Amino acid sequence: MTDAIERALGEINFGPDGLVPAIAQQHDTGEVLMMAWMNREAVRLTLAEGRACYWSRTRRALWRKGETSGQVQRLHELRLDCDGDTVLLLVEQTGVACHTGRRNCFFRAWRDAAWKVIAEPQIAPGRLYPGGVEPAD
Amino acid sequence: MTDAIERALGEINFGPDGLVPAIAQQHDTGEVLMMAWMNREAVRLTLAEGRACYWSRTRRALWRKGETSGQVQRLHELRLDCDGDTVLLLVEQTGVACHTGRRNCFFRAWRDAAWKVIAEPQIAPGRLYPGGVEPAD
Repeated sequence: MTDAIERALGEINFGPDGLVPAIAQQHDTGEVLMMAWMNREAVRLTLAEGRACYWSRTRRALWRKGETSGQVQRLHELRLDCDGDTVLLLVEQTGVACHTGRRNCFFRAWRDAAWKVIAEPQIAPGRLYPGGVEPAD
Repeated sequence: MTDAIERALGEINFGPDGLVPAIAQQHDTGEVLMMAWMNREAVRLTLAEGRACYWSRTRRALWRKGETSGQVQRLHELRLDCDGDTVLLLVEQTGVACHTGRRNCFFRAWRDAAWKVIAEPQIAPGRLYPGGVEPAD
């Protein structure tokens, strides 16, 4: 297992900051849920545990998606792009992906010369983070 | 038009390097085609021209997607995430998105402890770039 994961990591071209962009997509609907960042350890944990783990740049810490909110992303498949510098996670999203309580983070659309909010929260952020501490990427 | 675009830009949080990650998704199928980078001018041109324009980090130049290969991405809608630091382009992809000739760039999947190529080129790269110069992000 560990050797295999090391082989997986060997093909990923992490940037000068040790990170790669990671896109999370709902595996069956194709909905793009969010974009976050991963370092080597985040990829390792994601593959080992079968759930998305990111690197929070603001908190400078590993961030097991859903560890506070319960909104876990179970890994369906990990994919790598042609240059090896971006990963795509096909996931099964429990609940909502966005810290605002929306299903996905891309809820602003440029329409008629303005940013329009095109999705409403499905759950109040206060219920996602009872302690008041919201994660940030 | 210009004022509107300036308002659009005002909500986007470009990074210290002046760039934001940009995810291109086929608007009707949900297929994630590629990830690239945009600076302010790339977003401006994308909105003004209705086709995806990125910033090539390696060439340090604006990169109108398809200008060499003809594989244009017509903009269907621009979306912005909760933090304003990632954009999602819903596009109509002409032909293929990947410089390898594949429909999308995420053609390697981690399966059975190895990276498996899960899509074949639909067109030879030599036909995409007759001059032999392939773009890079």
